[in-house]
Amino acid sequence: MDFAKLDFDRKNRTGFPEVIFCQGKPDDFLVDIYKKMYDTQGQVLGTRASEHQYELVKTVIPNVCYDKISRILKATSEDVIPQELIGEIAVVTAGTADIPVAEEAAQTAEYFGTKVNRVYDVGVSGIHRLLDNVDTLNGANCVVAVAGMEGALASVVGGLVKVPVIAVPTSVGYGANMGGISALLTMINSCANGISVVNIDNGYGAGYIATQINRLATFHGEN
Amino acid sequence: MDFAKLDFDRKNRTGFPEVIFCQGKPDDFLVDIYKKMYDTQGQVLGTRASEHQYELVKTVIPNVCYDKISRILKATSEDVIPQELIGEIAVVTAGTADIPVAEEAAQTAEYFGTKVNRVYDVGVSGIHRLLDNVDTLNGANCVVAVAGMEGALASVVGGLVKVPVIAVPTSVGYGANMGGISALLTMINSCANGISVVNIDNGYGAGYIATQINRLATFHGEN
Amino acid sequence: MDFAKLDFDRKNRTGFPEVIFCQGKPDDFLVDIYKKMYDTQGQVLGTRASEHQYELVKTVIPNVCYDKISRILKATSEDVIPQELIGEIAVVTAGTADIPVAEEAAQTAEYFGTKVNRVYDVGVSGIHRLLDNVDTLNGANCVVAVAGMEGALASVVGGLVKVPVIAVPTSVGYGANMGGISALLTMINSCANGISVVNIDNGYGAGYIATQINRLATFHGEN
Amino acid sequence: MDFAKLDFDRKNRTGFPEVIFCQGKPDDFLVDIYKKMYDTQGQVLGTRASEHQYELVKTVIPNVCYDKISRILKATSEDVIPQELIGEIAVVTAGTADIPVAEEAAQTAEYFGTKVNRVYDVGVSGIHRLLDNVDTLNGANCVVAVAGMEGALASVVGGLVKVPVIAVPTSVGYGANMGGISALLTMINSCANGISVVNIDNGYGAGYIATQINRLATFHGEN
Amino acid sequence: MDFAKLDFDRKNRTGFPEVIFCQGKPDDFLVDIYKKMYDTQGQVLGTRASEHQYELVKTVIPNVCYDKISRILKATSEDVIPQELIGEIAVVTAGTADIPVAEEAAQTAEYFGTKVNRVYDVGVSGIHRLLDNVDTLNGANCVVAVAGMEGALASVVGGLVKVPVIAVPTSVGYGANMGGISALLTMINSCANGISVVNIDNGYGAGYIATQINRLATFHGEN
Amino acid sequence: MDFAKLDFDRKNRTGFPEVIFCQGKPDDFLVDIYKKMYDTQGQVLGTRASEHQYELVKTVIPNVCYDKISRILKATSEDVIPQELIGEIAVVTAGTADIPVAEEAAQTAEYFGTKVNRVYDVGVSGIHRLLDNVDTLNGANCVVAVAGMEGALASVVGGLVKVPVIAVPTSVGYGANMGGISALLTMINSCANGISVVNIDNGYGAGYIATQINRLATFHGEN
Amino acid sequence: MDFAKLDFDRKNRTGFPEVIFCQGKPDDFLVDIYKKMYDTQGQVLGTRASEHQYELVKTVIPNVCYDKISRILKATSEDVIPQELIGEIAVVTAGTADIPVAEEAAQTAEYFGTKVNRVYDVGVSGIHRLLDNVDTLNGANCVVAVAGMEGALASVVGGLVKVPVIAVPTSVGYGANMGGISALLTMINSCANGISVVNIDNGYGAGYIATQINRLATFHGEN
Amino acid sequence: MDFAKLDFDRKNRTGFPEVIFCQGKPDDFLVDIYKKMYDTQGQVLGTRASEHQYELVKTVIPNVCYDKISRILKATSEDVIPQELIGEIAVVTAGTADIPVAEEAAQTAEYFGTKVNRVYDVGVSGIHRLLDNVDTLNGANCVVAVAGMEGALASVVGGLVKVPVIAVPTSVGYGANMGGISALLTMINSCANGISVVNIDNGYGAGYIATQINRLATFHGEN
Repeated sequence: MDFAKLDFDRKNRTGFPEVIFCQGKPDDFLVDIYKKMYDTQGQVLGTRASEHQYELVKTVIPNVCYDKISRILKATSEDVIPQELIGEIAVVTAGTADIPVAEEAAQTAEYFGTKVNRVYDVGVSGIHRLLDNVDTLNGANCVVAVAGMEGALASVVGGLVKVPVIAVPTSVGYGANMGGISALLTMINSCANGISVVNIDNGYGAGYIATQINRLATFHGEN
Repeated sequence: MDFAKLDFDRKNRTGFPEVIFCQGKPDDFLVDIYKKMYDTQGQVLGTRASEHQYELVKTVIPNVCYDKISRILKATSEDVIPQELIGEIAVVTAGTADIPVAEEAAQTAEYFGTKVNRVYDVGVSGIHRLLDNVDTLNGANCVVAVAGMEGALASVVGGLVKVPVIAVPTSVGYGANMGGISALLTMINSCANGISVVNIDNGYGAGYIATQINRLATFHGEN
Repeated sequence: MDFAKLDFDRKNRTGFPEVIFCQGKPDDFLVDIYKKMYDTQGQVLGTRASEHQYELVKTVIPNVCYDKISRILKATSEDVIPQELIGEIAVVTAGTADIPVAEEAAQTAEYFGTKVNRVYDVGVSGIHRLLDNVDTLNGANCVVAVAGMEGALASVVGGLVKVPVIAVPTSVGYGANMGGISALLTMINSCANGISVVNIDNGYGAGYIATQINRLATFHGEN
Repeated sequence: MDFAKLDFDRKNRTGFPEVIFCQGKPDDFLVDIYKKMYDTQGQVLGTRASEHQYELVKTVIPNVCYDKISRILKATSEDVIPQELIGEIAVVTAGTADIPVAEEAAQTAEYFGTKVNRVYDVGVSGIHRLLDNVDTLNGANCVVAVAGMEGALASVVGGLVKVPVIAVPTSVGYGANMGGISALLTMINSCANGISVVNIDNGYGAGYIATQINRLATFHGEN
Repeated sequence: MDFAKLDFDRKNRTGFPEVIFCQGKPDDFLVDIYKKMYDTQGQVLGTRASEHQYELVKTVIPNVCYDKISRILKATSEDVIPQELIGEIAVVTAGTADIPVAEEAAQTAEYFGTKVNRVYDVGVSGIHRLLDNVDTLNGANCVVAVAGMEGALASVVGGLVKVPVIAVPTSVGYGANMGGISALLTMINSCANGISVVNIDNGYGAGYIATQINRLATFHGEN
Repeated sequence: MDFAKLDFDRKNRTGFPEVIFCQGKPDDFLVDIYKKMYDTQGQVLGTRASEHQYELVKTVIPNVCYDKISRILKATSEDVIPQELIGEIAVVTAGTADIPVAEEAAQTAEYFGTKVNRVYDVGVSGIHRLLDNVDTLNGANCVVAVAGMEGALASVVGGLVKVPVIAVPTSVGYGANMGGISALLTMINSCANGISVVNIDNGYGAGYIATQINRLATFHGEN
Repeated sequence: MDFAKLDFDRKNRTGFPEVIFCQGKPDDFLVDIYKKMYDTQGQVLGTRASEHQYELVKTVIPNVCYDKISRILKATSEDVIPQELIGEIAVVTAGTADIPVAEEAAQTAEYFGTKVNRVYDVGVSGIHRLLDNVDTLNGANCVVAVAGMEGALASVVGGLVKVPVIAVPTSVGYGANMGGISALLTMINSCANGISVVNIDNGYGAGYIATQINRLATFHGEN
Repeated sequence: MDFAKLDFDRKNRTGFPEVIFCQGKPDDFLVDIYKKMYDTQGQVLGTRASEHQYELVKTVIPNVCYDKISRILKATSEDVIPQELIGEIAVVTAGTADIPVAEEAAQTAEYFGTKVNRVYDVGVSGIHRLLDNVDTLNGANCVVAVAGMEGALASVVGGLVKVPVIAVPTSVGYGANMGGISALLTMINSCANGISVVNIDNGYGAGYIATQINRLATFHGEN
């Protein structure tokens, strides 16, 4: 860990503690970093963790929790006073296969203190499922729209709500979906207003931005 | 015209007379071909014609008609007995900029004897516009869905109707639409069932297939 | 299964029961969904199933059948009265390696009540093999043309028949086939009329559309 | 204009009046739409207008204003009471060639009632120019980062501010910039948090989203 | 012309005189090079010439000939003894729009002394047109297959003949043909044996290789 | 094997017996096809075979031979009279990693009766290695140039010889080589004359074409 | 010019004065910037200038010089003492069509004080032309290799010299050269050591880097 | 090893001994080549080696060293007199995940006799980390900038230093990073001067070029 520069001041600067991207981290390094952050901050969140990494971290932080769906690996010390969730965002998916990415977004936002409403499996091929949830969407300060295959969900949501839509293309699909590039292009070219896009499968990034917007809406820009 | 092989037998074989793709045809060649087909068949349809080509053909066939929107250049002799339009298809567009391609599809289908219902400017960013027209769509034997930008229209239509949807991506858009490739990918990756896709801006092709399906539905497969 | 929204009304709305895309479904979820649909509807069809998934489902539905070639996993209760197959479609392949996708198309169509004629291994590099089968193709209400590598089959078929051709590019090939993108582009750019295209390896989608067309032709648009 | 569906109710639904994308609109159509909206709403904003279009609209709305840089064509009746600009966003560019897109964003946001701070020509190849403006950026509720060529600006800005960054790739550049795709990919893959992306050259879209966020921050989520 | 290195020895080394790629050559340079080669060799062939370039060269070589279709600009002095054309190749096209590229191939081969059989407008959407010409193809030492759009012609020809097929993709088409990349991919991925491919619209290159093969076949490898 | 159409007449029609592309063939199918062809023709050649496939075929044809480098799996009955190799081609590689593809080409050509000269590891980064072998290249009726990475070898060879060069891009390389697409583009865009290209790693195809040319050169076009 | 931030201190910081990228600059802006830099520094260099821009600047700086080949627009006051050119670099091109880019590189390097050796039209299809100039290349501190089409030149040069090679892909070519992307990929994937690559047609960038290296070599790293 | 042409003279010609690219080398071949080079030169460097390859080589050269991070496999005989490292270059990374590529560059440069300063984990999302190291960068004769994801680091570094920057895109990232193509495009399109680019993950190539430049700077062009 002599090369890495852990950034414990980050929370002061940006309002967000550092989060660990677990995928590809060497075992020793991952255990060290979880231990150091847990000891210093009392809590750690990691994304894209494997079950193997969960087993490893559990050896040094026995109460660490692993969510198989979202692949989030979270440790919270008993000394940490639970934060009250504020405001409200909505996380929407086209299909059930998009749920892992959606949960990464939702649980990230919750870790950062945002209240989250989940609206899953409401893809545009059965448009009534989405229309049944318009009120929920309109109650949010920000909507995260998660979709793979052709990714059309974001455009329809964008036409239904007043608030910003963060579109997350997923790699769900096959053939000409090109690992999510197709859904990404769909969302970037959306005919609807109010839509901006993050990287393929980047639930974490969407949860982060939704939290930024939710805080601005809740704290009147005073955060 | 010594190299070209005009196919006057095509109507017998396939049930469709030959149609001229005007774009890029040398002037002399175009005039010759219109003249020959008009003299033989009494009618000619050309697609992607320019105003210049219209002026040229008018010198030999004075009653030729040019539609600036669809760029269709059509000549019909007075001797031709008007065909009754049969069955019904619907042609739907996302925006007004997609109308030229939609009209190429619609007028092609009409030339081939198909009754066409037009439902234009009902893109998904204002989903109520499309939902207001569901009954019209469900009355058709085939729906042609024409959309540029992100091309999400086809997926939503596919989820609303029982009949086949022919999706036509258009080159409408800018930036990452890559001349229509983005809309094409959207439609190919559609999460909805019953959708198949033709080339970018290929209104003619969609009108042709819609006619094939409409005839099968109308003539009980006896065409 | 609390997030997923099973759509038991779908058959009434679209004329087609829901079908399961097995690939990537978590084990528990897959077993639950097969059980629930089997109990409710008496039959279930799943595509892209693995042998492992077959073993799993067999534990709860002992008479489930798995076809290794098409990877279709189908369960039919004895109480279900066998449906008579109607009309006729043809499914054509370029090579033997395209047969898995073709069988997904054919068996899907059969599950939906369509009579299917198989014409396999008739690729254009030996054009006589295709020409020997022209009569079979012309007896169909719709032709599904399945081909990988350069995908030229669809264009030749399109020139031989009156009915719509649903072209299915496959990922068969290597090098510059780019996982099927090459065959997809070939089919989208076809010089022949009457061809529309579905996603790479999407046999299911082609079988679905062919059934839509076959029903329109058979029921005179009254389905 | 019989096909187009002007959406005068849009302001009630979304809080934003309709805006005209002028590029490619036929002359007659453009003049009609400007006239109708001006008569109904007292003001009209159009983007991507040409000088030729300005001349046309001036014939029916003499006080229409055209900004050559942003290509915005705006008409405001004297009866319209000037709106007070609220909150604050920042619009930042990498180079001078990115200013047209930035001005489209800035003037759009102003039209929608947002106060805008411009920070131009502060690209990362002279990083001190950007660092000199950190306080300005931190005073904003949202930062719009506009950059062509390699588009690195967004990542650096993202690391300097707490608020959401809307990244706008531009088509500025040559060679392997592929008309802005390179800058788009840079921004989508950004290592910094809090960045979401709109289409290439889509200043309008960025100004729209920045306004949504600015309103949420200013009205405490009560807009 | 001080930078350019004209290669008058090339004919000895490779058996082929130098040929001029006219497109993009500055006017002065083009005239100089034609003059110098004409004076030295008695004949010059240029490809991709414009009418403007024809007019220019005619001022110094009055008997220069320009073929508008192939865009070949050829000058032959009266002192040059006409060469007898040897062997036989076939040049085949899918459509009439491919003829300019085919003529570049054919006239190049003829300039290099090869006898050429032209078989044009025999695309695979009307396969009987090609089958009617199988004997002609089988009489050739090499077949040049020229096709745009989906470029399927090469595969069918490859399955019908014993000799090498040089496939030339053309930029003819629109939409997803991507300027000829689609036809190029088709030909590279061909399921037929004996096919190799040159660059898009590279009729010259195909005529050159066909001549190499024709000479080997005619001179028994003694050329 | 009821779907596959083995083509025992192929040798009469094209002068080449059928060859098996082993990769991806199901085990049962592969064994059957080897057995049937061996019994009928006395010899079988397969390409892209795995060691596992070798073990399988050996159970029914004990004297089958497997070459680990080229992955060619060949069986020849003792009753087959060895053919004399005729003419001469050269197979050239840029590096040692390209040798597997080169050997597929060379051994295919030898199976078809062609004499082959191997010139390996003569890539352009050490140009003297290639120049030392110019005489060998010039003695061939056709040169097969095999190269991965940037694939520059083909252009240099093309400038050194009179005979046709069949260029084979390989997937050797990493990063922006895109699985061989980079080398393919290099070869297609070659500035040298006389170069045509086959698919990435398609040694078999190059060996086939080289044999066609070698036969034409050796038999004076009488094959 | 109120938005632009001219950087007169740049020469002190980086050792290089600012250079103007003329292409796309509005007329007024260009004239202003030339005037201001000329008055301040006594000399200005601009790249990618048009003849129209030359005429404009001449109205305010009558002794400005325009080179039609390189499109460089340079103004030098009589008060500027001519700099002695130091060290030596070589600029090499594959063809004559690459010379404009090469001249941009060479004249940029000369403006920055570097002595330049030009070696043009030595592409790899006639390798002897390059080999004849090896001594010149080996006398340079850096070689700039400029090539379009397949761009193989850089690899061969890289294998012949000890010093760094700056490879410049050009957009010269047609068809699958994709505007220079093909040459760029060739150079990035080069099998030779010592090659690094700049953007397509970026002669200026190559001249800049070559000057950096030449100064390090000449001033012993003391610049 | 009969096909490979080991190049023991390379050090005299280019100043660099041959280095082994281990990835994909067959086991026998790798052991042979290490043994032969070790016996001849007393030292061998290999890149992209696996642990398995380390174990293999250790059987014949017991003192061979393997660095798991850089994957460099190096053997140095005790008879080799340690070289003094000369000059100075800097190797900079954006994140910790880029360190393997950076170490390949650094250790390659050290093997070739260059002194290396490492500055790791200073990506642009926390720009202060880079600014804190400007003095180190300015003390180098060349900077190697290693970055994945969006690769913005190179542009910022380019604006801070006088010496050439060798940019190395890495495959670090996910989604639309396309295996490093995104970072490669960023670096090729950089708005900063003095940046040239090598292949994705090509640390070796960057270490090689940095050594060439460092030698020129140190030996005053006399190397």
